[in-house]
Amino acid sequence: MTMQCGVFMTPYNPPSRTPRQVFDWALDIARICDESGYADFMIGEHYTLGWENIPMPEAIIAACAQTTKTIRFAPMAHLLPYHDPGTLAIRIGWLSQVMEGRYFLGVAPGGHHTDAILHGFENISSLPPRQLEALGLMEKVWKREPFLEKGQWFQAGFPGPETMPEYWVDISHNGPYGGRDKLEIAVTGLSMNSSSMKFAGERDYSPISFFGGTPQMRAHWNTWADAMRAKGRTPDRSRYRVCRDVFIADTDAEAKRLFLKSGMAETWRKYLKEIYVKFRLFDGIIADSGLDIAPADIDEDFLAEHVVLCGSPETVIEKLEILADKVGGWGQITANQHDSLDDPKPWEESLRRLAIEVCPKVKMPVLKAA
Amino acid sequence: MTMQCGVFMTPYNPPSRTPRQVFDWALDIARICDESGYADFMIGEHYTLGWENIPMPEAIIAACAQTTKTIRFAPMAHLLPYHDPGTLAIRIGWLSQVMEGRYFLGVAPGGHHTDAILHGFENISSLPPRQLEALGLMEKVWKREPFLEKGQWFQAGFPGPETMPEYWVDISHNGPYGGRDKLEIAVTGLSMNSSSMKFAGERDYSPISFFGGTPQMRAHWNTWADAMRAKGRTPDRSRYRVCRDVFIADTDAEAKRLFLKSGMAETWRKYLKEIYVKFRLFDGIIADSGLDIAPADIDEDFLAEHVVLCGSPETVIEKLEILADKVGGWGQITANQHDSLDDPKPWEESLRRLAIEVCPKVKMPVLKAA
Repeated sequence: MTMQCGVFMTPYNPPSRTPRQVFDWALDIARICDESGYADFMIGEHYTLGWENIPMPEAIIAACAQTTKTIRFAPMAHLLPYHDPGTLAIRIGWLSQVMEGRYFLGVAPGGHHTDAILHGFENISSLPPRQLEALGLMEKVWKREPFLEKGQWFQAGFPGPETMPEYWVDISHNGPYGGRDKLEIAVTGLSMNSSSMKFAGERDYSPISFFGGTPQMRAHWNTWADAMRAKGRTPDRSRYRVCRDVFIADTDAEAKRLFLKSGMAETWRKYLKEIYVKFRLFDGIIADSGLDIAPADIDEDFLAEHVVLCGSPETVIEKLEILADKVGGWGQITANQHDSLDDPKPWEESLRRLAIEVCPKVKMPVLKAA
Repeated sequence: MTMQCGVFMTPYNPPSRTPRQVFDWALDIARICDESGYADFMIGEHYTLGWENIPMPEAIIAACAQTTKTIRFAPMAHLLPYHDPGTLAIRIGWLSQVMEGRYFLGVAPGGHHTDAILHGFENISSLPPRQLEALGLMEKVWKREPFLEKGQWFQAGFPGPETMPEYWVDISHNGPYGGRDKLEIAVTGLSMNSSSMKFAGERDYSPISFFGGTPQMRAHWNTWADAMRAKGRTPDRSRYRVCRDVFIADTDAEAKRLFLKSGMAETWRKYLKEIYVKFRLFDGIIADSGLDIAPADIDEDFLAEHVVLCGSPETVIEKLEILADKVGGWGQITANQHDSLDDPKPWEESLRRLAIEVCPKVKMPVLKAA
């Protein structure tokens, strides 16, 4: 089986970019990825984060309905405690219909402190149980059978055909495209002991791993696979998506040169490095490197060598195969998007090469079902 | 001052149309209206109504960002009790930024029985006060000053710059384009004694009147104008939008022939007539007609003569001028959109003629400020 590729756009644009710049640029990248053979395009949802400022992933998805042909889209993720579950369930179904099935769904409890404050929370402790309650109500709406339920935080219902028949809609129109069983739901994991990977396995949702080195990649897979097996399901490695920074050019030297002047390097300099240091997210990567280096001392050489998959197509293929040998295979390499508005060509070229020159050639271990 | 024209898409498509058909068709109509000089394009929000099935007007608006140039868009209306106010406030601001100001906002409490059930309501009595609470919290978010508030039904807040500075966004990006003062808010009125017209006047929101004859048009204006004056404001007739069904062709006979085989006639036959009879919405129109007819007996001849502005450009101009003489002027005639997928040309031609051949020629009474 060929490794698929995808794109994850959180979006990692500097706060100086306007919403319109980010919007137009997202549509450009989606079109390039669609033409190059990418399988998936995922878009974050945040409300108060300067570097990740897309509060409505649905806006990007809808705007790509007519401008793309085969690529699938997902909000990654809708933050369920921040939505009315009846509204969100119908909107998800309707948008999956508009996309004629080129849609899957990311869910998350939210948790960025400033997003939580915007939604009136003094702390984030109630967000995970709120997510569960919202999911339960959304699943009931998708069943399309009459009910009315008031939970601890949310309420929802579904009308029966006896209520105001002149307005009645065959609301299958607004259910997930092809039926609820056809709706893939996915969840991202970041930290070593990711509770969201367990949550995903327990509910048969697909796992997406943000890269933090091989110990964490193994932990994400094992946590998900164990939770799947505990429910009597067979964990399938083709469902495992791994997010990486990738920068490809003609030669290793050229790739590093272009990476260092790219928006990706700028994101690490001005935004991600501080967060990775603070939350100890470099630890697994440092262990893999065999170097004795403190997270705060990580420099651009280290990033180019150990954090980013940076190099010629041949080098990137080799790095991916070494990684796969260490941790087992996966189904999709998901490239993190970064700002490239000031010099778009090298980045767009790198994206194309990942899909056309790298992914089809990567030899994965057999994606056996365990 | 020239009368503007707009389009209101609730969307009035038969339930047999798929979400994708309605979506594509909305983008087509928006492009035609943009090219013809329409000022506004408004899109309804409903969750369970077969003939009015767009649960996410933002999806249409975002998809039109790159395909239109000057026309303004509005959700008409966001149903505030069905949304998290923090989420909605930021999304409204962000989308108005994406549209670079080609955006205004409709608000409403909701009230369709089946939509209310979807959102877990046994009855609709609490929807108006919920709308007020949501509006209050949204206005606070738009002020961009730190707060945290738990209301009776909703909660919201705004983070201060001291919270997690590494994530901090200059969130002016996600406030209404040009500042809160530049955001037009509008409200629709339907019944004779429309409480929403009073609500609009009290808060300096613009009034939009769904047509129900001259007594109701006068009542809508007077209610709004009185509420404006009671708050010390000058009611300006140029802010008054009036929604009508309009069908224009070369001659009166041709317009009537095309209307009778149009999606508009189908909407009346299969959907609107029953609702208008049930809620006595024909009463003012029957009074205007001078005919002794029961609402249930209204036929297509009556619709073509008294409900729809149907005829040649000259006839429609004359009908509009007679109406304006009776009720005073207004700023915009807003054409209700109807399904036209099976035979799009006559409808598209009618839309173009309204903007190009009718509106610039209508002589309005001086739109004096009272």
